[in-house]
Amino acid sequence: MKTVTCTAPVNIAVIKYWGKRDTGLILPTNDSLSVTLSQDILHSKTTISAAKEYSHDRLWLNGKEEDITKNKRMHNCFRETRALRQQLEQDAAQRGETLEPLSSYHVHVCSENNFPTAAGLASSASGLAALVFTLAKLFDLTNNMSELSRIARQGSGSACRSLFGGFVAWEMGSKDDGSDSLAVQVAPETHWPELEALICVVSDEKKGTSSTEGMQHTVNTSPLLQHRIKEVVPVRMAEMKKAIHERDFQTFAALTMKDSNQFHAVCLDTYPPIFYLNDTSRAIMKIVHEYNATSPDGKLKAAYTYDAGPNAVIYAPKENMREIIQLIAHYFPGSADNYFVDPYKLFTSTQDLVSDFKPAGHAAFNENSIPVFPAGSVSRLLHTKTDDGPRVLGQEESLLNEQGLPKRVSA
Amino acid sequence: MKTVTCTAPVNIAVIKYWGKRDTGLILPTNDSLSVTLSQDILHSKTTISAAKEYSHDRLWLNGKEEDITKNKRMHNCFRETRALRQQLEQDAAQRGETLEPLSSYHVHVCSENNFPTAAGLASSASGLAALVFTLAKLFDLTNNMSELSRIARQGSGSACRSLFGGFVAWEMGSKDDGSDSLAVQVAPETHWPELEALICVVSDEKKGTSSTEGMQHTVNTSPLLQHRIKEVVPVRMAEMKKAIHERDFQTFAALTMKDSNQFHAVCLDTYPPIFYLNDTSRAIMKIVHEYNATSPDGKLKAAYTYDAGPNAVIYAPKENMREIIQLIAHYFPGSADNYFVDPYKLFTSTQDLVSDFKPAGHAAFNENSIPVFPAGSVSRLLHTKTDDGPRVLGQEESLLNEQGLPKRVSA
Repeated sequence: MKTVTCTAPVNIAVIKYWGKRDTGLILPTNDSLSVTLSQDILHSKTTISAAKEYSHDRLWLNGKEEDITKNKRMHNCFRETRALRQQLEQDAAQRGETLEPLSSYHVHVCSENNFPTAAGLASSASGLAALVFTLAKLFDLTNNMSELSRIARQGSGSACRSLFGGFVAWEMGSKDDGSDSLAVQVAPETHWPELEALICVVSDEKKGTSSTEGMQHTVNTSPLLQHRIKEVVPVRMAEMKKAIHERDFQTFAALTMKDSNQFHAVCLDTYPPIFYLNDTSRAIMKIVHEYNATSPDGKLKAAYTYDAGPNAVIYAPKENMREIIQLIAHYFPGSADNYFVDPYKLFTSTQDLVSDFKPAGHAAFNENSIPVFPAGSVSRLLHTKTDDGPRVLGQEESLLNEQGLPKRVSA
Repeated sequence: MKTVTCTAPVNIAVIKYWGKRDTGLILPTNDSLSVTLSQDILHSKTTISAAKEYSHDRLWLNGKEEDITKNKRMHNCFRETRALRQQLEQDAAQRGETLEPLSSYHVHVCSENNFPTAAGLASSASGLAALVFTLAKLFDLTNNMSELSRIARQGSGSACRSLFGGFVAWEMGSKDDGSDSLAVQVAPETHWPELEALICVVSDEKKGTSSTEGMQHTVNTSPLLQHRIKEVVPVRMAEMKKAIHERDFQTFAALTMKDSNQFHAVCLDTYPPIFYLNDTSRAIMKIVHEYNATSPDGKLKAAYTYDAGPNAVIYAPKENMREIIQLIAHYFPGSADNYFVDPYKLFTSTQDLVSDFKPAGHAAFNENSIPVFPAGSVSRLLHTKTDDGPRVLGQEESLLNEQGLPKRVSA
């Protein structure tokens, strides 16, 4: 029995992916670009073991066994990585060497997110990235990360971007077989370590449209999407890469907000329309614009972005993060003890967190530009930053016991 | 002293006007098309008197005197109509006749809306249309309504559409001087009298961006607007005119909703973004889609549209209006006595209004697709219909007394 355990990070796009040109192979209608967030706060953790004795593939997700055969997208990842392992085994045989025939073994997969799926944070990206990365380690694949990203892409489109740390582009490619649709690292996390993020988990009663379903409605019905794909995104991708290379937060911030807004605009242009932003989301956008508009030197100090849900992710340089957190905590007070998660210890106490909210030097800041929202409108605030790609953990971190069964099973 | 009193209606666009190519002359970036709503429910009423004795032009708006010289847009309307009157006077003189030199008299203008401006219903369109129409009657102008619409346009863009009843197109024109940017009637109100409307006045704490300011932000910053202007609207205008001519509610409804959504999409694509829809607005959209999606014969039964504010206008054939009102009154209950205004007496009592809300025959209707909103989220429901253009009233309706001063002045 061979067992490997790895984690993979969440990524939040600043140039958005929305629309597939091939739904089977998961080939997108445009390039996208994301920032990888620290696994210290959010990650998917996956243990996979392969053993001759296993009678069939088994899968436990967040402590519950699921039918692995019904998960077509996961199946794609197994098929592709097993084929690569098989090739390695054949190559070895031709050299007269012997590799353990792992490609023919059944596997047990156990995967957990360290954040509730219900939080609405993209868990499929980190989950599928962890799966593919762990399979690659299990099988000792020699392929580079971009080659693996092609496989992860077939599990969940944006998963391909979670195989790298830092700043990652998913190049849409042009080939019908998808062989050139893969992720590349634009810059590593060490290039711009000052870039931090605040995740605002926004409460919402409505269950939104799934992104898989939503994006194809947009492809099929939005007249504006085609213009976005053809004219807008190519220009923005080039500008965004340049901004990242130059650590130019002004361009990065403006493009991030514009692209988030355009993504939600094409959702609204879909018929019937798709909404992900609610009144809380929009108030966060408004207070970020007020904060930026009153900045003492006229420069942007923060940038919001929203995926297919009401949660805000606010990117900002480290030096602004303290006042951004105070601002959000003031207008969107928490209602639970675990409201604020800050591994970087910016505040010494909850008192400290809410002691003041007016950003220093913002003379024209209008306190009444939005009201103070009911407690719990934002349920969690998670302080994080750009960080590294998937990690291999030690055996002591395994989610499976020596029999290849989950150490923890939920009721 | 000569005195004339007229009313002009509100119009609600189904193909939206958003963006000027010339802000001085008020020339739009695209054609638009609207439905004129009944003056029985909503109108602007204007009395204008002209007298040799008046020392200067005076203006009372909703009972308060305003400085007429500061209102540039109104000034455009005075200048243009006085010039036309002067021409008539000169032509008469050349024929050896004498017309009273009204063009040289000062005027007193008194105007009121029969609905609160605060309700967020487009009052500038009806107000400026009433002004221009009343001036035309006062001056005995012989110009046709489209020619007058060119003048009203310079007071407030969409005012040009309020000079006609029924279905009205504002053709953007192509000339720099704006001489071909005017309104034409696509069909009179008698063509499709079954088309009714329900105005849902949505409560909102925020003061939205004014449309004058907002649309130029969109022109200057939205990459998607240009595509809408060039590619989308021309096609939709042709389809909408055809739908109206054929009384084809299916096409009319789908286009109306799509165009409202696209207008709000380009607002969101503006930088910084502009929002007019709030959670209540979006819940109304959702329940209309649920109502349509579960229609027994698969046909659309209602269409929403939203201008630069959170209020919904729901267009529907007369036969569906009773269940639409019940639906809205159930999910968005009123909190005041004047909640429901219905000159057509569809319900015998408030009890009758809220007795049932499930649309008959809609087997798959999901009652929980939206929650019941807090009372007062929709403050007013006004039942109205497509109706006629400006009306000339009798002298007994004058807002000015024999001294040319307002009969009513507010504190």
